[in-house]
Amino acid sequence: MHAAFYHGNQTITIGDCAPVEPGPDQVQLKVSHVGICGTDLHIFHGVMDQRVTFPQIMGHEVSGTVSAVGNGVTGFSVGDAVAVMPLDPCGHCPACEAGHSHICQNLKFLGIDTPGAFQSYWTVPAHTLHHLPANLSLTHGAMIEPLAVACHDVRMGQVQPGEYAVVLGGGPIGILIALVAKHAGARVLVSEINPFRLELARQLGLDAIDPRQADLPAYVTEQTGGAGADVVFEVTASPVGAEVMTQLPRTRGRIVVVGIFGQPPKVDLFRFFWRELRLFGARVYEHQDFARAIELAAEGAVPLDQIITDIRPLDQLEAGFRQMEGGGSVMKILLEV
Amino acid sequence: MHAAFYHGNQTITIGDCAPVEPGPDQVQLKVSHVGICGTDLHIFHGVMDQRVTFPQIMGHEVSGTVSAVGNGVTGFSVGDAVAVMPLDPCGHCPACEAGHSHICQNLKFLGIDTPGAFQSYWTVPAHTLHHLPANLSLTHGAMIEPLAVACHDVRMGQVQPGEYAVVLGGGPIGILIALVAKHAGARVLVSEINPFRLELARQLGLDAIDPRQADLPAYVTEQTGGAGADVVFEVTASPVGAEVMTQLPRTRGRIVVVGIFGQPPKVDLFRFFWRELRLFGARVYEHQDFARAIELAAEGAVPLDQIITDIRPLDQLEAGFRQMEGGGSVMKILLEV
Repeated sequence: MHAAFYHGNQTITIGDCAPVEPGPDQVQLKVSHVGICGTDLHIFHGVMDQRVTFPQIMGHEVSGTVSAVGNGVTGFSVGDAVAVMPLDPCGHCPACEAGHSHICQNLKFLGIDTPGAFQSYWTVPAHTLHHLPANLSLTHGAMIEPLAVACHDVRMGQVQPGEYAVVLGGGPIGILIALVAKHAGARVLVSEINPFRLELARQLGLDAIDPRQADLPAYVTEQTGGAGADVVFEVTASPVGAEVMTQLPRTRGRIVVVGIFGQPPKVDLFRFFWRELRLFGARVYEHQDFARAIELAAEGAVPLDQIITDIRPLDQLEAGFRQMEGGGSVMKILLEV
Repeated sequence: MHAAFYHGNQTITIGDCAPVEPGPDQVQLKVSHVGICGTDLHIFHGVMDQRVTFPQIMGHEVSGTVSAVGNGVTGFSVGDAVAVMPLDPCGHCPACEAGHSHICQNLKFLGIDTPGAFQSYWTVPAHTLHHLPANLSLTHGAMIEPLAVACHDVRMGQVQPGEYAVVLGGGPIGILIALVAKHAGARVLVSEINPFRLELARQLGLDAIDPRQADLPAYVTEQTGGAGADVVFEVTASPVGAEVMTQLPRTRGRIVVVGIFGQPPKVDLFRFFWRELRLFGARVYEHQDFARAIELAAEGAVPLDQIITDIRPLDQLEAGFRQMEGGGSVMKILLEV
């Protein structure tokens, strides 16, 4: 079997590695497809060198089939098609005890804090697995993890039918949020500056504008009869996103912070007071979001084929990173293992 | 009758003015007591000169008795003791139509956008009035408005019995929030730097610390078994308050922004993501908060006498402002009209 190893300093090598036999309550997967996440690109850029272990095998957006089952595992058999919810909580911290195990205070994120899925066989805790139904391809199965992020974000944003939602940032997560919100019955506007992504959003039936070429707050005000948006998803993690997010919502409107801000931006807290705005941080997903993502994908409710812009072999991980860095005509890149 | 007039440039004069006869759906009050609000001090400092009309009569924390009733007014008679909820919404903007008339997009705040209560007789819309029960003094009646702010903030913060609440800033509003949260069953910590206010908070049965002399986040972590606070009220409107407010809450903890920030501070949005924090802007009050404040005050559930540190005659408004500017041994100053 082979794997892609990250050595720091933007260096990836492809090499051999031995499959890990599943221990008690573990399952070994034959990896099929793995998406490249923005977080993987951050790791490649060295941002998380203090957190990962060299050489790091990254990758956490995975589909595969069960290849071996450890002692004590029930409900999964060799050959089963699965997706992995890559969270391993401690089970006993205050967050876990409060029922927030997905944001456990000692959380291990598989593929960051442990070896990940950019390898032929991946051994994971059985509690992370979700069955994929027969009518869902393994290609689409690798999209369940990011789709579950979107399902979580839309759930945290309490999106209701008929509401007006704005998504700031039309990358893979932003577009998936927009599509899940639209499926939930919202009118959705995507704000994005990349022309390829703007055009793709429009092809997907979403309203989309470039905020450099239009007055976004004025547009939202006009589209909502002077009220403002019911909910805004901030997915850019940029100072300008943090600025505009407070200009768009209606009184008691909601803002969901999805983007991961490396530095604290300036935030107009006066506007929170003035309009009684509400802000919800949203991180990863819970099992119910994974279940919902699988349901939506199996129904064909989200056009995943249009979002997967490239499928490359595993040994082209670095080429995938370079393509993502370049921006342009790229949305989600999958690696076929 | 006489009134206190603000002319800009930190100038207050006391002079005569004619009582305004109540028009249809209006009521004229004989003013009894009026609290000096931090907002009045801001106006005195010229911060709102673009918004007020010279000469401005300020004042909106009022108790009084009905002295005349206009046509069409029902439910109020001459001699009735009342407090005023000083909000006059338009009734037809998107906020009003959504049921958020207290944050109406065209809201007139009585005493800022209209003449206020620092005068012998004050004429207001009848819909702003709340009856004061016989067992509630007119002195305490002037505390209903700020107490209603606290009731609103605690309601927005969804405080539950047994929860751990932190109030950043122990001025009049902060202390009232702390007392209302305590009455709702929370354990409450007040963070304050003024020694007089710290000591007063402790006399009122609240835990209180000076964040310059103790590690506030470490203290809250220790007090909550490593979890963090359930709810934090930011009442300082300071950059350091905006910084510390994200360091204290537990996973999915709530932050209520009460302070009015003149400039957007830096806010750690990463922490919102990491712990799925929630932030709620809170502004003024709704009628249910006024009703609740009257109920609490009439029950004696909040020790208002200890919060009223001075009662001065109306012509000492400027002296009251100077006392507030000086900090020190001052909490709430009332004017007796």
